[in-house]
Amino acid sequence: MKIDGKEAAALLEQHDDILILTHAHPDGDTLGCGFGLCRALHKLGKRARVENSDVIADKYSYLYDTMETQDGFTPAYIVAVDVATKSLLGGKFEEYGRVDLCIDHHASNTFYAEKTFVDDHAGAACELIYQIIVDLGAAFDRDMANCIYTGLSTDTGCFKYANATARTYRIAARMIEEGANSAEINRVMFDTITRTYARLERMVYDSMRMYFDGRCAVVKVTQQMYRRSGSNENETDPIASIPRQIEGVLVGITIKEREDGTCKASVRTRDGFSASALCEAMGGGGHQQAAACSFSVGVNEAEQMLLSQVERMLAEGNTVS
Amino acid sequence: MKIDGKEAAALLEQHDDILILTHAHPDGDTLGCGFGLCRALHKLGKRARVENSDVIADKYSYLYDTMETQDGFTPAYIVAVDVATKSLLGGKFEEYGRVDLCIDHHASNTFYAEKTFVDDHAGAACELIYQIIVDLGAAFDRDMANCIYTGLSTDTGCFKYANATARTYRIAARMIEEGANSAEINRVMFDTITRTYARLERMVYDSMRMYFDGRCAVVKVTQQMYRRSGSNENETDPIASIPRQIEGVLVGITIKEREDGTCKASVRTRDGFSASALCEAMGGGGHQQAAACSFSVGVNEAEQMLLSQVERMLAEGNTVS
Repeated sequence: MKIDGKEAAALLEQHDDILILTHAHPDGDTLGCGFGLCRALHKLGKRARVENSDVIADKYSYLYDTMETQDGFTPAYIVAVDVATKSLLGGKFEEYGRVDLCIDHHASNTFYAEKTFVDDHAGAACELIYQIIVDLGAAFDRDMANCIYTGLSTDTGCFKYANATARTYRIAARMIEEGANSAEINRVMFDTITRTYARLERMVYDSMRMYFDGRCAVVKVTQQMYRRSGSNENETDPIASIPRQIEGVLVGITIKEREDGTCKASVRTRDGFSASALCEAMGGGGHQQAAACSFSVGVNEAEQMLLSQVERMLAEGNTVS
Repeated sequence: MKIDGKEAAALLEQHDDILILTHAHPDGDTLGCGFGLCRALHKLGKRARVENSDVIADKYSYLYDTMETQDGFTPAYIVAVDVATKSLLGGKFEEYGRVDLCIDHHASNTFYAEKTFVDDHAGAACELIYQIIVDLGAAFDRDMANCIYTGLSTDTGCFKYANATARTYRIAARMIEEGANSAEINRVMFDTITRTYARLERMVYDSMRMYFDGRCAVVKVTQQMYRRSGSNENETDPIASIPRQIEGVLVGITIKEREDGTCKASVRTRDGFSASALCEAMGGGGHQQAAACSFSVGVNEAEQMLLSQVERMLAEGNTVS
């Protein structure tokens, strides 16, 4: 059942012993939602904790302390935050048998929970959690502000992308006033790279090839590069944005080799070239400017398939889906 | 004479035929101030234009059209925006013989103008121009919003740094509501690099050396790198932030070779290691986390001098100025 934010806040108000679930491979938004909401519930005198099915990366350790992960009650009410599908709970749905309430900003939400509050105009799910905390009447403190700010910033590329709306900026302003350490959070999230990633990125730049008068750039990330750099797949997210950064590039393609020799591609586009149309032609999908597809062949063969399709789309001027 | 923002707005209200001066090597903030204010003055029925002593980079072309640069009146009132010193006007002070009003956010402002409104708590001078436009009663339109947003975003590293305050975020929210094309502006300013810069950056990464258990990273930009990459000094601003990005690095040093074989160094630090103390020891200066110094010797000799001082500061624990 679809509900609105006020109803979601009222349900949280009515319940106690609340378990909060984040999505697998947890990022700054789902963790900011989870720990921010958990701290607010504690302030209201409720028992609450956060669980997720994966390890939390070290860089997020400032978001929580032992209180937010403690075991010590049997959950009576189960809430998922920023989790679009049941499978993204990584087994937690099966473990607990249900989700009572889902608070999310993905248009792709599958309404697996008993009650769902979804607002896909929110740049970050933390925008929704912010409003719920306000509606619950819990006072913000520095820790809660750090949680909410982290979600806002990480899900919008540090307020860079179109999903950062006036509302996103206004909530960020409020969180800074409540003590959020915005500069340090952004330094850790956006200006810190490992030495192994720095080595990998250099190899990726070396692999860049330009096609079609510089309108298409392709980079490859191979298993050999992981071995030589000491890096691994978990560090490769920022690479997808590299080829499109080059001036004049309409279509930036990143092809990552899997351990079994097959590969997947991330596509980033601009100026109306449809990333989703390109990836749909390969059996994948996504958004207008960011999409992905998977291949059962190797990186070089995948590259040729993608380039043929790009050439066709450029020739036909059929670049908008 | 120091004045406040209301007085600055009143002075603009009282005058006509207004010339607005930006600083040399104009950036997004000084241009956003200049063209934003100029458009506001036009809306109030005044004659106004913007002049600066240098070429405006192509990427800023969306900030103005012919109206904002037209010649056709003898200036009766001269305003400098985001210009800390007379010399940064690049000859315009001497050309016109005076500046009547300066609106700035640099603590280092030298009060060269007849009247000066300076607020160094502003992350961008565009925050001050925003308030003046509000006080003048000129309605914002999309073009003005793009000008102000550009200044806010470019001077704060896309809202990443500590100089982006709650006020900065709130004004950005308002500008988005007035039509600012935030995502496209940020793409052009932060996610676009030239092919020559991409080549140079790769060489810079290749030159990186780590010292003192990975606490210090040094990169070099040589004249040979410019020749081999096709890049030049004008593209090198983003490089200064590269060495500090590496995990564990407290002191990131970028040494740039000049044409005459001498060099200058940019230092970026974190966790209380004082960049200004390091650079002051070399005859330079700056801020706690960002400073610079100049050398009359070559890059390798400068590197040795800097490393000796870094070693001394690390050993003494004397890292905070």
